[in-house]
Amino acid sequence: MEDNKAIVIFQPSGRRGDVPKDVTLIEASRLLGVDIEALCGEKKKCGKCKIRVEEGLFEKFGIQSSMSHATPWQEEEEKFINEQEKKAGYRLGCVAKVEGDLLIFVPEESRAGKQVVSKKARDIHIDHNPAVKVYYVEVDPPTFEEPTGDFERICRELEKQYSLSNLKIDFFTLRQLPMALREGDWKVAVSVWNDHEIIRVRPGKAEASYGIAIDVGTTTVAGYFCNLNTMEVVDTVTLMNPQCKYGEDVMARITFHMTTADGLKRMSDDIIEGLNWIIGEAIKNTYPPKKKVKKAEGEDGPEEWVEVPEKDKTYLRLSREDVEDVTICGNTAMHHILLQLNPEYVGLAPFPPVIHHSLDIKARDLGININSGSYVFVLPNEAGFVGADNVGVLICEEPYKSDEIQLLIDIGTNGELVLGNKHKLISSSCATGPALEGAQIQFGMRAAPGAMERITIDPETLEVDYKVIGRDAWRQYSEPKEMKAKGICGSGILDILAELYTSGVVTKSGVFRKDQKSKRYRRNPENNQPEFVLAWAEETSIGKDIVITQRDVRQIQLAKGALHAGCKLMMRRMNMDKLDKIKIAGAFGTHVDRTKALIMGLFPDCEIEKILSVGNAAGDGCRAALLNRAKREEANWVSRNVEYIELTVEMDFQQQFMECMQVPHMKDEFPHLEGVVPPEILHQK
Amino acid sequence: MEDNKAIVIFQPSGRRGDVPKDVTLIEASRLLGVDIEALCGEKKKCGKCKIRVEEGLFEKFGIQSSMSHATPWQEEEEKFINEQEKKAGYRLGCVAKVEGDLLIFVPEESRAGKQVVSKKARDIHIDHNPAVKVYYVEVDPPTFEEPTGDFERICRELEKQYSLSNLKIDFFTLRQLPMALREGDWKVAVSVWNDHEIIRVRPGKAEASYGIAIDVGTTTVAGYFCNLNTMEVVDTVTLMNPQCKYGEDVMARITFHMTTADGLKRMSDDIIEGLNWIIGEAIKNTYPPKKKVKKAEGEDGPEEWVEVPEKDKTYLRLSREDVEDVTICGNTAMHHILLQLNPEYVGLAPFPPVIHHSLDIKARDLGININSGSYVFVLPNEAGFVGADNVGVLICEEPYKSDEIQLLIDIGTNGELVLGNKHKLISSSCATGPALEGAQIQFGMRAAPGAMERITIDPETLEVDYKVIGRDAWRQYSEPKEMKAKGICGSGILDILAELYTSGVVTKSGVFRKDQKSKRYRRNPENNQPEFVLAWAEETSIGKDIVITQRDVRQIQLAKGALHAGCKLMMRRMNMDKLDKIKIAGAFGTHVDRTKALIMGLFPDCEIEKILSVGNAAGDGCRAALLNRAKREEANWVSRNVEYIELTVEMDFQQQFMECMQVPHMKDEFPHLEGVVPPEILHQK
Repeated sequence: MEDNKAIVIFQPSGRRGDVPKDVTLIEASRLLGVDIEALCGEKKKCGKCKIRVEEGLFEKFGIQSSMSHATPWQEEEEKFINEQEKKAGYRLGCVAKVEGDLLIFVPEESRAGKQVVSKKARDIHIDHNPAVKVYYVEVDPPTFEEPTGDFERICRELEKQYSLSNLKIDFFTLRQLPMALREGDWKVAVSVWNDHEIIRVRPGKAEASYGIAIDVGTTTVAGYFCNLNTMEVVDTVTLMNPQCKYGEDVMARITFHMTTADGLKRMSDDIIEGLNWIIGEAIKNTYPPKKKVKKAEGEDGPEEWVEVPEKDKTYLRLSREDVEDVTICGNTAMHHILLQLNPEYVGLAPFPPVIHHSLDIKARDLGININSGSYVFVLPNEAGFVGADNVGVLICEEPYKSDEIQLLIDIGTNGELVLGNKHKLISSSCATGPALEGAQIQFGMRAAPGAMERITIDPETLEVDYKVIGRDAWRQYSEPKEMKAKGICGSGILDILAELYTSGVVTKSGVFRKDQKSKRYRRNPENNQPEFVLAWAEETSIGKDIVITQRDVRQIQLAKGALHAGCKLMMRRMNMDKLDKIKIAGAFGTHVDRTKALIMGLFPDCEIEKILSVGNAAGDGCRAALLNRAKREEANWVSRNVEYIELTVEMDFQQQFMECMQVPHMKDEFPHLEGVVPPEILHQK
Repeated sequence: MEDNKAIVIFQPSGRRGDVPKDVTLIEASRLLGVDIEALCGEKKKCGKCKIRVEEGLFEKFGIQSSMSHATPWQEEEEKFINEQEKKAGYRLGCVAKVEGDLLIFVPEESRAGKQVVSKKARDIHIDHNPAVKVYYVEVDPPTFEEPTGDFERICRELEKQYSLSNLKIDFFTLRQLPMALREGDWKVAVSVWNDHEIIRVRPGKAEASYGIAIDVGTTTVAGYFCNLNTMEVVDTVTLMNPQCKYGEDVMARITFHMTTADGLKRMSDDIIEGLNWIIGEAIKNTYPPKKKVKKAEGEDGPEEWVEVPEKDKTYLRLSREDVEDVTICGNTAMHHILLQLNPEYVGLAPFPPVIHHSLDIKARDLGININSGSYVFVLPNEAGFVGADNVGVLICEEPYKSDEIQLLIDIGTNGELVLGNKHKLISSSCATGPALEGAQIQFGMRAAPGAMERITIDPETLEVDYKVIGRDAWRQYSEPKEMKAKGICGSGILDILAELYTSGVVTKSGVFRKDQKSKRYRRNPENNQPEFVLAWAEETSIGKDIVITQRDVRQIQLAKGALHAGCKLMMRRMNMDKLDKIKIAGAFGTHVDRTKALIMGLFPDCEIEKILSVGNAAGDGCRAALLNRAKREEANWVSRNVEYIELTVEMDFQQQFMECMQVPHMKDEFPHLEGVVPPEILHQK
């Protein structure tokens, strides 16, 4: 390594490379293709480019390197970084410069082009019956005639007033009991878990209690912070899964565990830290924001942090102890890694999980920093590849209560399918891979500003119209340089195959037709691969044409082929030839154009109006379990009453898969497209 | 402080004082009246004088002192002190010298004149039904047709073979499950707690499991290490309660908590450390002892520790993970301090405990270092002054199953009384104080070699005959200098009042008669107090006469008066005028001479054959709860069905107490003494 260069690694993206010494961390990030927010243009005025310097962690990544540092702390950073953050290694990216090898963590809020996470809580119906309920009791103080102990004293009253019998008490809660009773002058608010165990005792009148439902996705973690009494979603906090640095998908994480001595513990510690961060954020947001301002003594006086409440807004001002219940869902691998259960066999045929059943784990045993007596409820798993997140979808959508035959599709990094109705439900998983989310596509990107999210191709002219995230006007209504396209995100990718096919650019089998007149079609001079230009360089912010290549089309076909074949094989198993309803869960579902999905053959035929997006149903189900404990029993029941089908062992799986990679014959396979697409497209061969 | 002196404190006795610098620690101990074992006469050959130097702990005791040290480590200590002990601060008392202020801990095994602890497990009948049982199961490995998870797989088999249903699994045990199953080739031994929760999974065939019942006394802690399958008591390990350094009795400990910020935590940490030590000793004793011996290469070669197994003895070679269950009893204050429950109100009228009910606490939550999934069962409390130890006595003796009217007396540092039969039981406590154990008596001492344990006085000559611990021959069969008496222990003290009275040395009211001819009776020249010589200086090892003083007699009267008055008031409450049986629990009971106890009026009249010593019934009850879980339910039932009576609030308590301090009129009050003691004594007034 030259003396004037240094290695810098940015987390969580994992991007690394040499940069010249003495550049700012923002400049380094730009050199390595990492986007850090810098609204003020690096004028040290906005404080948005906060990052965390994680020196000393190099060995963790197996890199031999002498430790070195960023340039020293500058006074101008103090305005934006408080004492605690400073201790944790926070710096302003536009101030600190590279002096040697560095490991940098870019916090979610400092990432430019933040992912547009569609993990908002939906307005779903939930019966109010939380596992944690608060009861107010007043008891008589002990006397010589009646010197009964504190615990039995409140139990007697809880039984008399609320018919709660045979109560236990958490050991740590018991330690608080004598003081709470006497501080509250023998009046206390008692939090009871599942009518069974006292998990908190507060002096005085009952106040609200809170809980959080957390959907631990392979890529994104979303927490829904709820008032357990009103069921209101007080806050939604999302975070990129900190395990992303160990690998993008489930198998990569399992491999990391198998190849690294303490890999499982490290990944578990990271996600637990992430969950604690989410809870911390939710708590922090119950206080007014703080600003650093000058004290009264004039311009040169010292500064201090003061609260700046918004007008007419009341702040709950909660503490971690006010979080009294947690529910967690995630796919089986995320479930196992979180709980430090060996995930090895989940990745190995026949993929048995360590446990199906839900778990009630003391938060302290898991390292979750909330009220010490509280439990974490972890939803049950269906199978090795259909996990607790899918159970979340099921208890949210309740197909087992329906007469209609429903197909539930949940596509994250893996595809999970459930088919059936109240008589029978089967589930399966399919290896869609991450192509439909933009990975493995040359110009694929996350759903972030500049991403092409809608794409149409005129069948006559083969001209492309499109819309990017962050700009309302489509290409045809804009000047080229206004578009600033950067790449294609998942929803754009979902449009492409149908558009390429209906405009005749590709054949049924996904091959680019060679007889095309449009200058958008061309061969890449480097590898001679056919490609089709979606946006010309002048319309982009990256200075080059954004294209879709033959290889990209194949990746999309592989993904959609796996999904469609899975659906077909499941229908065959159930002897079904039609679907009453298709429900698509996840961010994926909110973006899909149903007609185009049918045209490209993403899944089998269904009445278009009956194809529904159900949002983050996994998270909603997790929230339902938080607010209604009956849902927890339901989750265990359904997790053992959905039959898991391993499709890859079907005799003709390979043939079905190959067939489904093609664009299907719409007239024969999609009668519901009749009247929806022009006849010439419907009858196309 | 002079420069050539240093402060040395010895724990657990708490003895402290100045000693000259450069004396050995053994010499220092002798100067301060602490006995350290030194069989070889300080020739550095026996290794019995191991002590632990606890420098740096001075501030803990509020002493301002510059830290300083013992002389450096010497090679000759290596023979007796291994690497781990060396790290913990162990030294040989005959090698290390005082260089400055020191805090020294003398471990139990290094204390000369070790207390003769009568805490052996008795042979009592217990039905075999332990809370932890081990089940062996073989399961089929998972297949594509049957990919059920590991947990559900073993549950199914446990249900099929052993009818165990709805099992849960400890979270930490779950983490071991996948490896145990695969290491054992799908055959595992599963430990199940209360037919309810899996707490351990071992690969392969079922082996034995072990548990320990621990009686946490104010002064002595005794652990009974048992095989849960055979119920055999594998080992009994005792320890002086490490909290003794904070105060001898319950009230002193409660006061320490109230006057010291982290007092409760410190006392709790100390006893938890003590429990872990006891468990560690029991484990250690399952291996052969080790000796340091020369390696083969000749006299100058290096040494190593090797096992020296006893002939024909098999060693279990257990680990802490093999300890799968723990039961604990203790008085209410010990119970609270152990669990870090505020003990303040137990010491404050009307003395309500924090909890009566038994507790099942995860060993890890309590800091007990055994199998990670295991529970500690803590017996329930009856009341503030009648604790879980008394419940242990009750479930051992089962007076609630008897027609006979029984009086159960448990005298440790406090006296606890239970009276009744299967129709009704009441309990109470009386402040006997520690006089009957030898404290507060001028020449009182613990039951250790040299203690006078049996004393008789000839009514004619007033000559004293006695026996000391460690010597079989009585005084009258020995040369004076052979006796080497040191003091009087509890059982000797129990003899004295009856002997002094029947020989006419004291009156009914405990006053020394002035008209005595024996030269043993005299007045102390310093304070003019009457005293009676029990052993002349030449018979002692302390070089002075051992006497019983008027003040000593008063202390004994106070103690026995409190006990007798308690019994009488309880009988009045129950409208009873006679007792069918008296059972005396504790070390106290094993030493009491029943006739003399009646003569002095220790408790009300009862047929002498029906006065029984039941040994450490608290510990036996605790062991019954370990080996038979039905006893745990019984404990909870009885703890709430014994009515606690606060005797001190009785109108005429003071008068009863005063009356009972006297030696009673035997003929009237003790008809059962007729024919047992000579008529002239029986009719004495």
